[in-house]
Amino acid sequence: MLVKRGIAVSPGVNFGPALILGAEDFRIPRQFVSVNAIDTEIARLKSALDAVCEEIAENERLASDKLGEQYGAIFAAHLQMVSSPRLREEIETLIREKCYSPEHASSRVFRRYTKLVQHLGDNYLAERASDIIDLEKRLLKQLLGEKREELSNLTTPIIVLANNLTPSETAGLAKEFVLGFATEVGGRTSHTSILAGALEIPAVVGLGEFLSDISGGDMVIVDGNNGEVIIDPDEETLAKYKDTGERQRSMAARLASRRKIRSETKDGTRIHVMGNIEFPNEVEHCTERGADGIGLYRTEFLYLQSNTEPTEEVHYDAYCRVVQAAQNRPIVIRTLDLGADKIPRGYRHLAKEGMNPALGLRSVRLSLRDLPLFKTQLRAIFRAAVHGDVRIMFPLISTLLEWRQAKMIVGDVLEDLEERGVEFNANIPIGMMVEVPAAALLAEEFAEEVDFFSIGTNDLIQYTLAVDRSDPAVSPLYNSSDPSILRLIKMVVEAAKKKNIPVTVCGQMSSDLKSIPLLAGLGIRQISATPLAIPEVKEVIRHLTIARAEEIAAHAMTIDVARDVESYLRGELYKICPDLFDEELPL
Amino acid sequence: MLVKRGIAVSPGVNFGPALILGAEDFRIPRQFVSVNAIDTEIARLKSALDAVCEEIAENERLASDKLGEQYGAIFAAHLQMVSSPRLREEIETLIREKCYSPEHASSRVFRRYTKLVQHLGDNYLAERASDIIDLEKRLLKQLLGEKREELSNLTTPIIVLANNLTPSETAGLAKEFVLGFATEVGGRTSHTSILAGALEIPAVVGLGEFLSDISGGDMVIVDGNNGEVIIDPDEETLAKYKDTGERQRSMAARLASRRKIRSETKDGTRIHVMGNIEFPNEVEHCTERGADGIGLYRTEFLYLQSNTEPTEEVHYDAYCRVVQAAQNRPIVIRTLDLGADKIPRGYRHLAKEGMNPALGLRSVRLSLRDLPLFKTQLRAIFRAAVHGDVRIMFPLISTLLEWRQAKMIVGDVLEDLEERGVEFNANIPIGMMVEVPAAALLAEEFAEEVDFFSIGTNDLIQYTLAVDRSDPAVSPLYNSSDPSILRLIKMVVEAAKKKNIPVTVCGQMSSDLKSIPLLAGLGIRQISATPLAIPEVKEVIRHLTIARAEEIAAHAMTIDVARDVESYLRGELYKICPDLFDEELPL
Repeated sequence: MLVKRGIAVSPGVNFGPALILGAEDFRIPRQFVSVNAIDTEIARLKSALDAVCEEIAENERLASDKLGEQYGAIFAAHLQMVSSPRLREEIETLIREKCYSPEHASSRVFRRYTKLVQHLGDNYLAERASDIIDLEKRLLKQLLGEKREELSNLTTPIIVLANNLTPSETAGLAKEFVLGFATEVGGRTSHTSILAGALEIPAVVGLGEFLSDISGGDMVIVDGNNGEVIIDPDEETLAKYKDTGERQRSMAARLASRRKIRSETKDGTRIHVMGNIEFPNEVEHCTERGADGIGLYRTEFLYLQSNTEPTEEVHYDAYCRVVQAAQNRPIVIRTLDLGADKIPRGYRHLAKEGMNPALGLRSVRLSLRDLPLFKTQLRAIFRAAVHGDVRIMFPLISTLLEWRQAKMIVGDVLEDLEERGVEFNANIPIGMMVEVPAAALLAEEFAEEVDFFSIGTNDLIQYTLAVDRSDPAVSPLYNSSDPSILRLIKMVVEAAKKKNIPVTVCGQMSSDLKSIPLLAGLGIRQISATPLAIPEVKEVIRHLTIARAEEIAAHAMTIDVARDVESYLRGELYKICPDLFDEELPL
Repeated sequence: MLVKRGIAVSPGVNFGPALILGAEDFRIPRQFVSVNAIDTEIARLKSALDAVCEEIAENERLASDKLGEQYGAIFAAHLQMVSSPRLREEIETLIREKCYSPEHASSRVFRRYTKLVQHLGDNYLAERASDIIDLEKRLLKQLLGEKREELSNLTTPIIVLANNLTPSETAGLAKEFVLGFATEVGGRTSHTSILAGALEIPAVVGLGEFLSDISGGDMVIVDGNNGEVIIDPDEETLAKYKDTGERQRSMAARLASRRKIRSETKDGTRIHVMGNIEFPNEVEHCTERGADGIGLYRTEFLYLQSNTEPTEEVHYDAYCRVVQAAQNRPIVIRTLDLGADKIPRGYRHLAKEGMNPALGLRSVRLSLRDLPLFKTQLRAIFRAAVHGDVRIMFPLISTLLEWRQAKMIVGDVLEDLEERGVEFNANIPIGMMVEVPAAALLAEEFAEEVDFFSIGTNDLIQYTLAVDRSDPAVSPLYNSSDPSILRLIKMVVEAAKKKNIPVTVCGQMSSDLKSIPLLAGLGIRQISATPLAIPEVKEVIRHLTIARAEEIAAHAMTIDVARDVESYLRGELYKICPDLFDEELPL
């Protein structure tokens, strides 16, 4: 049994066999084979090894032809490794004696070699570890071959483990079989965490290196409440976690009964609570919890789900599905926010140059560089807007110039649509995310030109405090209660009030219950939260008066250190709705 | 002849033979050998190749012993490559027919192979290029051996070329022989640029991939005025550049005569102009140009110059040298600002985790994690402060908590010194850099506790606009004239005025002549610029009135787009001091 501690990012507890997502997308779904299948499995191993040998021999020929024999010799060495009797014996022994599947056994043997080489101390030798990893990949590719279990076609429940879950890796996941996520890197608001929230499954991130200690098929517990991952748990531990899982589910059921109540303060101020979603099917997650609409529809998955750029029709279909599911509730579609940790294959060349992807070519900057891509999306949105209350929001706007450029493209797109003679709705609100400090500082100027603001607290905090939220070395500095963040939000709300445009807060902060009274007190009347949090956010609002919220905000603004603001807000939340917490509901 | 365009970061023009800094610090100083040395050189090549073979054979034995023969075989393949007659012949032919040095000839041959392999299209093959690069390195190591020209011991002038100049690579450079820098990556305010400015040599960065097209010893022109690097120039081009070089030098001499004039506006307001330095010997660069002190002494080089942590005495000696050279002028010592692009070998483990080093564990965050390191530096500063006007400045402060922690450490250090009974000066001003948006937003609170502010515009712009200044994909968005930056500076100046503490502006913006009237108009009375810019900055100040500067600042604050602010400021600068530009002085 091995316990790893990380950051809990999506609540709940689950356990199941591990499925490891590697850089090359290899998954080893089964750890064991039945005793009477052993001979068949060993035969399978042999033919896989033979196929790898054939592949390498082909490479050797190619290299010798093009580069000369001395170069081909490197492949001859690989060939020798793969065909060595010792390697074959080691793998066979594991299959025969431990009933490991050939995939699991091969992976174990190669990992042991890799580790050995990496720790030899000599740099030159250590670098050669990549040779061994290559060979492992080749062999797994052969073994998994056509029978390789597709992520989109899982048949048994699994726990997904990875260094980092890239959106493209998870886009195709058969989500009904995913019991939990655990990753080596990532922070509270990284993409993995958002995804886990969207799927409503337990997740722990920022665990540090642990994948070399585990093989596909090992039993794993993901504890999304306490931020722990337990590998190969003993029976007692497993029993304890089974019990915890039960209790969590009953608590969720208790809250469910209050979900549909209207979100209005005690003194009658309506505060709209909307949902943040990634996938069209999540609209239901929101509406069944009484959301007033979709405040943030992230559209990256349309790009990440396949290797080719989505066509206008793919966009249009997705948007129509969301519109239909939302049943006349407003839907705010955020245009492409790719880059940083979300880079689809086709765009890597654009984003690769910088050392700091979060400060690089991403989001609307990328859209403004690739106009065909941007226009395709915009056309689909204006067409879908015929069928419901659709709004557009541009992410990561940093300067007025960018905003005006984006609006100019909108003008072009509307002309295109006019010419094509298709049905579209040009009269929809167009707003922007306020998530770059520069944009918050110029909120008054922006407010003259935009239809609405949506404060993206995740990035705003990240840039304002100069803290990468997914970097464990500094993530404790990332804090939504920092006085600087409160000031920027206030600045934006005041600017919006002057020009009479609405402001929403999306991002993690709006799902953080202790921030709700503060936000209401600062003047926020629209909150867009993660679907799971919607019932609780509404519950807090129903316990508030605006007068009290304003007092809380005013007092919070006088505190100069984030952790003091935080504990003040936490204390106030307990005072405001003690009944929400009478059964140790995690905050 | 090959012309590459990049970003001009340090003015001037120079030419000379290329010295390529590789990841492994190999330099090939000589391109040609004399005809009658050819046989000796070929003999040298042969013994080097033999030595590499022996080395690899040793590795093969080691690997076979520890891992089994199949693994050792990879080395056998390398052995076969290096001992192949074809390779030897190719290198020999270049030596014999072109009089190339064995180093140059080997590098050419290996680079051709590497390129060939990298462009084969097959990923698996392409990855094997690292094998060839390894072999090249081994051979060069043998060839350069003891006779290898040390960077700290250059005997002929060279142009330094690199992918990126890391501070540790350049720390030991014999600077009198460095004619210019050219790097593949980097931006206007990257470390390379700062270094080139400090050394006052022409530099071009952000050139993109070009090192594979050049070999050590090739003739190279660095045009730091126009951002061009010319490889293997023809005679005509070379002659043209020789001429340009002459003209530049005479223009600099003309400006030199005005350097010592006091920096006071026409209506008698004193604006102190100080210098930014990296090395103690640069104090003279500043004072001989009439600087009023050292506004920013960067201390990273003390850590980067060697692989071991500098002792208190190493710090103390450096600070004493600066104090002595400054002759009673104030010196602001910035504590350790490591991390991001400046990571010494010993600290890589701390900084490696994040995907965005600029938003990671760096600067004062790192100091607060490694107290022995931080305290050693502080002790040396307080001791050196006995001898002159020394001030301390903490970089990258993001929260009041951090500031208070740093001050607490100062308290500890003063107690330590008291106990030790050594001479020290506890009564020195302690201030902070304002370079994180959060700090600027809380300037009033900070102003209650700090002795002075120094606005670090480089990072402040980077975070406020969410733009990595060294990433060519987005660097055009990085602009010191952005309205958001003007507002933050104003906020900081106003807070400082309320609490009556001084504010300096350091960073690239303070060396940018068009920003000087703006800064003066916003209320800045201390500017710390790069030494080369000091005479010009002073010249601009002498042409100003505060009334006019305030008008300019007030008008600039009404413009909402950076490029409009920029062209307004540029126009005003021409109006204010046309005589400064009558001979096409580059802005």
